[in-house]
Amino acid sequence: MHNQVKKEEISKFFMSLQDEICGELEALDGQGQFREDKWVREKGGGGRTRIITGKHMEKGGVNYSAVHGTMPDNIAKGLGIGPNNFYATGVSIVLHPANPHVPIIHMNVRYFETDNGLWWFGGGIDLTPHYVVPELASQFHAKLKNVCDGHNSEYYKEYKEWADTYFYVRHRKETRGIGGIFFDRLNKNKGTHADHFNFVKDVGQSFVSLYKDQFLPNYEKEYSDRDREWQLHRRGRYVEFNLVWDRGTKFGLETDGRIESILMSLPPDVKWTYMYEMNELEKDTLAQLVRGKSWV
Amino acid sequence: MHNQVKKEEISKFFMSLQDEICGELEALDGQGQFREDKWVREKGGGGRTRIITGKHMEKGGVNYSAVHGTMPDNIAKGLGIGPNNFYATGVSIVLHPANPHVPIIHMNVRYFETDNGLWWFGGGIDLTPHYVVPELASQFHAKLKNVCDGHNSEYYKEYKEWADTYFYVRHRKETRGIGGIFFDRLNKNKGTHADHFNFVKDVGQSFVSLYKDQFLPNYEKEYSDRDREWQLHRRGRYVEFNLVWDRGTKFGLETDGRIESILMSLPPDVKWTYMYEMNELEKDTLAQLVRGKSWV
Repeated sequence: MHNQVKKEEISKFFMSLQDEICGELEALDGQGQFREDKWVREKGGGGRTRIITGKHMEKGGVNYSAVHGTMPDNIAKGLGIGPNNFYATGVSIVLHPANPHVPIIHMNVRYFETDNGLWWFGGGIDLTPHYVVPELASQFHAKLKNVCDGHNSEYYKEYKEWADTYFYVRHRKETRGIGGIFFDRLNKNKGTHADHFNFVKDVGQSFVSLYKDQFLPNYEKEYSDRDREWQLHRRGRYVEFNLVWDRGTKFGLETDGRIESILMSLPPDVKWTYMYEMNELEKDTLAQLVRGKSWV
Repeated sequence: MHNQVKKEEISKFFMSLQDEICGELEALDGQGQFREDKWVREKGGGGRTRIITGKHMEKGGVNYSAVHGTMPDNIAKGLGIGPNNFYATGVSIVLHPANPHVPIIHMNVRYFETDNGLWWFGGGIDLTPHYVVPELASQFHAKLKNVCDGHNSEYYKEYKEWADTYFYVRHRKETRGIGGIFFDRLNKNKGTHADHFNFVKDVGQSFVSLYKDQFLPNYEKEYSDRDREWQLHRRGRYVEFNLVWDRGTKFGLETDGRIESILMSLPPDVKWTYMYEMNELEKDTLAQLVRGKSWV
């Protein structure tokens, strides 16, 4: 235990990360400001949900939470451990841009521990362009690889594959977007507590730069009504993934999490059309939403 | 076996029910016409998906299917039976009206059997008004009760409660709408094969009349932008129910059903707003979306 970074310190980092990211995103939007809702969890802990409805960010959420309490028996059993008190903290982000040429982005960094000695870090960043631009997709992955390589030369390959597996809209047989990285349960089997924390810190701190790469060249681009239609339909897939397959969302919904905070990830405006007919450009994007594609 | 209505006859009834309902709905809409997609299931059977994009029916689906084949081992095990060939047939309807004063309606009638002797009927009808109008809600339930009472004086009470339990958006702690009836696995323990078939027939054939009661007084009503906003947000709850909790949808998505047919139930246009602020009228509707409310 004595070699672990204190959970309070980790939460403190996550809070400052939230502050920093919100500040940068407000600057990028130039108009919208985050509203903050502090909430308290009945059984222990709480969070700060921050939502922006901006000029360029049609809907965005940057949530921090730190919850704790007695672990439900069934979950403890599932983990193969005895009764305990748990602590879970993290930052979650989803940004739905107004301009269809700007991708949807998602990030999550999190930490979990129990008072009987279990702990792990997890997280991920993935990008969902409405139109895949190969150069921007490569840049995104290259920067993520760079962050990973600073810690372990195996990480990028491993966590990129994990993202391909995780961010998959199984019933549509398509990936949610061009992927990114995903990792979970980084524990003592894989490195020291401090090493993992440093990795998670770097992932979190890379977010703004990664998003700027996508946002700045695109947010003022002209777009057509058809571009908007396609965006609304791609958002439909985002909803399908989050409500049908995303484990984090499911866990939140099944364990009485704060619903409005969990579902901040849902887009502001969405369409479903039976047998939507794609044009060539749209087909081209869909053709690239496959697992195992190399972007760097 | 010899006392059972033949499965082909049941399917034939469902096909003619689909025809009849589609004809009536086109007449009601006055403009839209159903497009039909016939599809074939690789492992046996297929269906006729019919979708309308009309003037008053913004999006509607009336689907018939009859699929068969070898039952997957895990499902057979779950049912406590040996290897078998199954047959499943039914009609499913969801109608999303253009006018927010017209409720969303859903109906499903279905039949299932295996070649080693198992069979059951199931189904349900439920109504999701964007604004609850007590008289129309009562009329809906009274008519359903009447259909039920024609078969068994216990049915309405039992199946109304079942609908309250089933059509529940658990994470929101609200019902999907004002309920209706829901029933499943009506088998030899509960009546004869012919009796159940007759009940399911009556339920199916009550659909048009039930829908007319809701549609005719409302489809030409004026509505405001705010009414439309509320409708789009209520549709969000419909999506949440169907993708998170509906067993039929989940089963379809997990067993490689025809995705476009399964997800025809999703509304054409939907909104999610963080902490949507309801007005008094909207609050009044939400306050009535609770389990166990008596409508007759």
